[in-house]
Amino acid sequence: MIMPSRIEHDAFGPVEIPSDRYWGAQTQRALGLFEIGEERFPTVLTRAFGLQKRAAAQANVQCGVLAQEIASAIEKAAIELHEGRWDDHFPLTIWQTGSGTQTNMNANEVIANRANELFGQPLGTKNPVHPNDHVNRSQSSNDSFPTVMHVAAAIELRGRLRPALEELRSALAERSHAFADVVKVARTHLMDAVPMTMGQTFETFERQLSNALARIDDALPRLLILPQGGTAAGTGLNAPEGFDTFFCAALADVTGLSFVPSAHKFEGMAAHDALVELSGALNTIATSLLKIANDIRLLASGPRCGLGELLIPDDGLTSSIMPGKRNPTIAEVLVQACFQVIGNHQTVTLANASGNFELNVAKPVLVYNLLQSLRVLADSVSIFARRLVRGIEVNREQLASNVDRSLLAVTALNPILGYDRVAQITARAFRDRVTPREAAVALGFLDGDEYDRLVDPAALAAGSASKR
Amino acid sequence: MIMPSRIEHDAFGPVEIPSDRYWGAQTQRALGLFEIGEERFPTVLTRAFGLQKRAAAQANVQCGVLAQEIASAIEKAAIELHEGRWDDHFPLTIWQTGSGTQTNMNANEVIANRANELFGQPLGTKNPVHPNDHVNRSQSSNDSFPTVMHVAAAIELRGRLRPALEELRSALAERSHAFADVVKVARTHLMDAVPMTMGQTFETFERQLSNALARIDDALPRLLILPQGGTAAGTGLNAPEGFDTFFCAALADVTGLSFVPSAHKFEGMAAHDALVELSGALNTIATSLLKIANDIRLLASGPRCGLGELLIPDDGLTSSIMPGKRNPTIAEVLVQACFQVIGNHQTVTLANASGNFELNVAKPVLVYNLLQSLRVLADSVSIFARRLVRGIEVNREQLASNVDRSLLAVTALNPILGYDRVAQITARAFRDRVTPREAAVALGFLDGDEYDRLVDPAALAAGSASKR
Amino acid sequence: MIMPSRIEHDAFGPVEIPSDRYWGAQTQRALGLFEIGEERFPTVLTRAFGLQKRAAAQANVQCGVLAQEIASAIEKAAIELHEGRWDDHFPLTIWQTGSGTQTNMNANEVIANRANELFGQPLGTKNPVHPNDHVNRSQSSNDSFPTVMHVAAAIELRGRLRPALEELRSALAERSHAFADVVKVARTHLMDAVPMTMGQTFETFERQLSNALARIDDALPRLLILPQGGTAAGTGLNAPEGFDTFFCAALADVTGLSFVPSAHKFEGMAAHDALVELSGALNTIATSLLKIANDIRLLASGPRCGLGELLIPDDGLTSSIMPGKRNPTIAEVLVQACFQVIGNHQTVTLANASGNFELNVAKPVLVYNLLQSLRVLADSVSIFARRLVRGIEVNREQLASNVDRSLLAVTALNPILGYDRVAQITARAFRDRVTPREAAVALGFLDGDEYDRLVDPAALAAGSASKR
Amino acid sequence: MIMPSRIEHDAFGPVEIPSDRYWGAQTQRALGLFEIGEERFPTVLTRAFGLQKRAAAQANVQCGVLAQEIASAIEKAAIELHEGRWDDHFPLTIWQTGSGTQTNMNANEVIANRANELFGQPLGTKNPVHPNDHVNRSQSSNDSFPTVMHVAAAIELRGRLRPALEELRSALAERSHAFADVVKVARTHLMDAVPMTMGQTFETFERQLSNALARIDDALPRLLILPQGGTAAGTGLNAPEGFDTFFCAALADVTGLSFVPSAHKFEGMAAHDALVELSGALNTIATSLLKIANDIRLLASGPRCGLGELLIPDDGLTSSIMPGKRNPTIAEVLVQACFQVIGNHQTVTLANASGNFELNVAKPVLVYNLLQSLRVLADSVSIFARRLVRGIEVNREQLASNVDRSLLAVTALNPILGYDRVAQITARAFRDRVTPREAAVALGFLDGDEYDRLVDPAALAAGSASKR
Repeated sequence: MIMPSRIEHDAFGPVEIPSDRYWGAQTQRALGLFEIGEERFPTVLTRAFGLQKRAAAQANVQCGVLAQEIASAIEKAAIELHEGRWDDHFPLTIWQTGSGTQTNMNANEVIANRANELFGQPLGTKNPVHPNDHVNRSQSSNDSFPTVMHVAAAIELRGRLRPALEELRSALAERSHAFADVVKVARTHLMDAVPMTMGQTFETFERQLSNALARIDDALPRLLILPQGGTAAGTGLNAPEGFDTFFCAALADVTGLSFVPSAHKFEGMAAHDALVELSGALNTIATSLLKIANDIRLLASGPRCGLGELLIPDDGLTSSIMPGKRNPTIAEVLVQACFQVIGNHQTVTLANASGNFELNVAKPVLVYNLLQSLRVLADSVSIFARRLVRGIEVNREQLASNVDRSLLAVTALNPILGYDRVAQITARAFRDRVTPREAAVALGFLDGDEYDRLVDPAALAAGSASKR
Repeated sequence: MIMPSRIEHDAFGPVEIPSDRYWGAQTQRALGLFEIGEERFPTVLTRAFGLQKRAAAQANVQCGVLAQEIASAIEKAAIELHEGRWDDHFPLTIWQTGSGTQTNMNANEVIANRANELFGQPLGTKNPVHPNDHVNRSQSSNDSFPTVMHVAAAIELRGRLRPALEELRSALAERSHAFADVVKVARTHLMDAVPMTMGQTFETFERQLSNALARIDDALPRLLILPQGGTAAGTGLNAPEGFDTFFCAALADVTGLSFVPSAHKFEGMAAHDALVELSGALNTIATSLLKIANDIRLLASGPRCGLGELLIPDDGLTSSIMPGKRNPTIAEVLVQACFQVIGNHQTVTLANASGNFELNVAKPVLVYNLLQSLRVLADSVSIFARRLVRGIEVNREQLASNVDRSLLAVTALNPILGYDRVAQITARAFRDRVTPREAAVALGFLDGDEYDRLVDPAALAAGSASKR
Repeated sequence: MIMPSRIEHDAFGPVEIPSDRYWGAQTQRALGLFEIGEERFPTVLTRAFGLQKRAAAQANVQCGVLAQEIASAIEKAAIELHEGRWDDHFPLTIWQTGSGTQTNMNANEVIANRANELFGQPLGTKNPVHPNDHVNRSQSSNDSFPTVMHVAAAIELRGRLRPALEELRSALAERSHAFADVVKVARTHLMDAVPMTMGQTFETFERQLSNALARIDDALPRLLILPQGGTAAGTGLNAPEGFDTFFCAALADVTGLSFVPSAHKFEGMAAHDALVELSGALNTIATSLLKIANDIRLLASGPRCGLGELLIPDDGLTSSIMPGKRNPTIAEVLVQACFQVIGNHQTVTLANASGNFELNVAKPVLVYNLLQSLRVLADSVSIFARRLVRGIEVNREQLASNVDRSLLAVTALNPILGYDRVAQITARAFRDRVTPREAAVALGFLDGDEYDRLVDPAALAAGSASKR
Repeated sequence: MIMPSRIEHDAFGPVEIPSDRYWGAQTQRALGLFEIGEERFPTVLTRAFGLQKRAAAQANVQCGVLAQEIASAIEKAAIELHEGRWDDHFPLTIWQTGSGTQTNMNANEVIANRANELFGQPLGTKNPVHPNDHVNRSQSSNDSFPTVMHVAAAIELRGRLRPALEELRSALAERSHAFADVVKVARTHLMDAVPMTMGQTFETFERQLSNALARIDDALPRLLILPQGGTAAGTGLNAPEGFDTFFCAALADVTGLSFVPSAHKFEGMAAHDALVELSGALNTIATSLLKIANDIRLLASGPRCGLGELLIPDDGLTSSIMPGKRNPTIAEVLVQACFQVIGNHQTVTLANASGNFELNVAKPVLVYNLLQSLRVLADSVSIFARRLVRGIEVNREQLASNVDRSLLAVTALNPILGYDRVAQITARAFRDRVTPREAAVALGFLDGDEYDRLVDPAALAAGSASKR
């Protein structure tokens, strides 16, 4: 079967392209060159080129360097691109030139072909709309691709990760409130320590999430600074005065994100420090989430031979050999997502550390890993909140039994008896397998009533709760 | 539009499944639960389940625990799965239980449904072939999934990465031979040093590739050890005597890879040290390749303001703003692939470090990253060899000019004049912007003829080449 | 030779301690137990215990739970500890309990012994000052050690890293100004691109440093939040009301850093997210510095066979075999320091990800790596600024020659000729080894005068400089 | 107070050096230049320079390029250096030129000064023994420093890490044997699974250690290949024929390690792939050890509210606030050491990935991190084996209680009842809080006697143990 095709030309000669594809010569050349892997940019990035090319066309008109008629066709095509209509016309993987030039050219070519079609021209004519001279007007891949990197990351941060973190924070707060009076034994070094409440446990998690939100909010301002207008190498060559400002205003208008032009365009293409910074925030958040997911998994371990203090909702999944076995699958997903984020942070770090001179050429791999981290973290956090945390219950019997048997509430006696005598109590209790109360009385340090008054786990936990 | 569906049952009740899908209840439940990301196992893994289920069916027959008739249907379905016929019936992402249970169940369900269809039964009957009792017979996800992890990695290692590394080694050797007589100035600390040949430069790269091959060959034996037969937690519960041996023999027979049963099945599911080891080999290889790709990029920098000693082939891709600009795109792809491999190694390391008790539950994310590394590294190495290295030429003018102007061939005089007097020569040459020959003569250490005899870059480079 | 010794007692019995050492029983036991490595906490951490114990004594007096006489002796000893007098009495390495308990006890014991000595008592009496009941009053290792982690990091951040980064920013700004009119050829993908100025190159670096300062300033507020007052596990057991507030006020007073008590003490001991966040900022900064150091090394490569556009100051160090060879040693130090920081960030990340329940038990390794990163980064940045950047000069001949020979200033013709015709010019120039001016004229696109007017590198670079 | 000093000269002029120090001009210059951090090479590296300089002197004599009298003095001084006599004369930190040149010159200078002293000359004379012309004869830092990197790593690997791993393997094997008959409940996904023995748990750990030993043994051969003889940049300039072979023979003779000369010296200085490979082995081993240490910590958690199945020895250390609290301190040390190793691996990886052209210039930071990993891992493993593993006991009551209460031994019924009916049993047992035996009988699937015969945890565990 022969695929119908057309011929397009670029600076290096003719190229054969499938008839029904809107991409052009440079995309087709890249397709033949880079037969590597299957990793694709998420659509949030390719569609963001629709936003970027549209804002550029508007800014070009405002600067008087693009005819309104041409610009209108470009804008229409760009809106379609942003809405997903041309997703199937981005055939390249991320394994391409380190500047992302091929995907920028892919966007230029698709929009030019579509715009020419709107003018009634066949695909491949480059007339009246030329991919470089019009769609890419006042732009270079050097500034367009990093601009789109920032735009896509900002969209995911605001629209996906932030709501998910907020959802988890809220679920943890709700559980913290529900468990405010549930007394438990704290564990330090994995070993039994003093009494506290399960509400405090969940409040600890909630605080970590509150800080997570603060961390991504801190990273946002530098993410909103765009190098668009820097064109070749950051020089601004061929970009008219004011282009950058018009561009950001147009983009801010349609996205609701307060993008601003960089005062020093070179930096935004030579280095992507702001993206490493964001990845670093995700890395920190991943460590918080690992702690939370692991604590919940461990506290829910059992059902009969584990710690068994928490009960997590059933999810209907089970073992292929042990019938009816229930596992904390959703917590395991979150744990794995965090590992991915931490590893991706390493890739992002290396990619940014490797820049030379006026251009960092590890942009595709950098943004792929960053966007994956944002997506995977957001999705797994959201499900963790909805399907696991909201349904957590406590096993009151197990908790009460643990509180009764534990040794170290006796620490409350330090101010009265002094550290050394309390140490004698715990040593005796451990050695003779008795309660610390029995040991304290046997040692003659105080009587049972005094002990009960001074060492009441519920009162101690309540005291700790009131202290904040 | 209503999708036609059927109802299947599992231990937790009925589940609605699209009529034309061969997966079953546990897959469908997982599909509804884990709405996370888009990362899928590569087909090399899901298809390897076809190999695994087929070998298990054969081993079950040999052990006398599965009727031949049932086994034959399972085998037929498993062969189809391996050949890719059921690829579209694996809808889950990698974001699932840490044991990979859902994808194992997916394989069990697809094979059972297909096998029952071969018996003339409708999908969903579980009769005469039951996904757990027959397809998963003598198995657990605990042993099946890690077995498939090893099988998929071994297939990619042998069939994809090894040939690619060999291809690059060969291309480098060929260029080393071609440039055996091309004299150049060595660079240490990026600074001009003594003469050597361009052949030696490429031979250095070739040596790194030879060692890369040795490294993956060293990692293979531990990769061929399979935990199949360990069933639940490694205990071997419900697996008949000899199952593991029959299984490995069947698998070795069809793959040509010498799989052997683990003598201690617990280890193969509680930890994946062998896979971290393999990832470590890839990490080492990535550092070698970064060195090679970066050296070639830098030596080819220019065309007029760079080092310009190497010329790399055109690839037909160019800048979106600087017309006709040629960039080392393929080297940049390899560099980015190496960053991915190094970051993935971190994810793999974390995933393995996190196991508890009898089961590591970060299997999906671990194997996803490992297989991505194998694939991306192999593909980018192959293209780097074919499209870049094979076409490298030297810029003889630039090289000769550099050799003429360099200072430090004079090091050859150390044994005659001693270090301190040679230091006087280079200091004088640098200060007065003269050649070291002129400086040596001016300082009266030796005359011009002696100098020319003792400090001949070509002879020195040849001497160095002959010394090996 | 027999070392004179004394006997001290703790809860587990008698311990023999060298007579002249001020540490006590728990330190001595740890010394015998952990014979591992040689890594020690930097003195900034051990001395910070002097600040912490002093502030705690003051807060205890204010809360009415410690006699002024006892407190005064503790304060005096703590001041001495902070001033470095007792540095030699901290014999432990970082390889100890994950809570840092042994080093907290070491501080308690040294201060108690010294305070008792001030009261005229021999070492080891624990009377009138007891290490746990008085020096550690209202405290636990659980809250004291993380408090000291934050205090030490804040001191290093403010006193060492911030000034160093500011010093480098200033040196780069100064060089940017000095090179404002030096035209050069930009490099993207390592390949010659359009004209710009060397001043812009250094301004790009300076911008990265400005952002580096903003990043550490953003991280500071969360670093100033202290968990002191949480005592055991965060419960606040045995800490009087108001202790935390008094403590932070006292500490802020003496350090000038605005420490505030955490509103939720559990978080500050169960997790060290704020320290991972700071390490993440250092990681981002390390990627910026790698870019800067590598660019400078490459631009200064030569002296005769490299890029040779920059000249860096001599440092008097040379090769052991190539007499007089000069190398960019200080840039190499900075590069290595950055690798250390990036690797340490991984250790810090893992350490924080590993916490369980109420206590993270990887505190010593976490803070060791963080403080090493702060110190090494600060010192190497400072020397890089003073000994290298401040002395950088440009090689005007080399720069001018490159500008003359480069091809792509012709990009300025895009708006006049269109992308496709400019592509013809560069292709012709490259093929025929002529200047783009000659090619443009030969192709008949415009005459030489027009060309010179439109494509003037100095004017283009100046235009780019004026555009910001 | 004025320190007495002497003046030495190098190629750049006079330098003032403290009178009693044996180092020379280049060391002193470096000391003034690099005021960074406090990280020093471990003595195993600086002392290995004694081995290296001695073997070089011997090889020079054998090649006829060094007088025996000079060589003998060099050898005597080198032996003293190796024995530690001159440790205090290596004042530099690791923060120096990326080639390690300053530490190589430090060794050359100390040995030259000491050798001249043996000839009755004052320090600083360079006569009759010159640091470059004689001590460094036939050598460069380019080959000497990486040679010493390999020698030091091989010494630590053989003398420190291997014995420690073997010690742990042996301790685990011994405990495995001791616990061969102790039945426990396996845990997958942290949840109760089928019966097994505690002996199998420790055997799993032991297997990981056996593989760890195999991994370092695999890495050794490439570690024993030395680039000595490559001199400047790998060219072998000024090294006589046969020098490399004589050198390795001399070094092998004194160390007992089978060092061999590299067939391609360039590779051994341009890249340190063999050291990344070794670091990768340590990284893999660190993941194994994290699993082991964490499992033991968790199984020993309690004493009353944790899993409590293992009892680990007291170490005499306790909490500063909770008197008598016992914590798994030694396991926490091992965990922290593993984090250090994993982070160091990242630094090592980056250091090796960053090489350019003929010389990797991140040698000091690379070898510092590698040697730290070897040392810290070895020491913490050794103490973990001796002070923790050897003393582990089981809590038989807790284990028996868990086995009695667990649900999933019923999996043994799968072959008889089929997966779906066994699922009904566990669902009923869980819902009604009864034993699976009671549920099975209530459902009428089999009677109590049959159940007891088929589902006997001890028999199942024994079966699993016999199956290997």
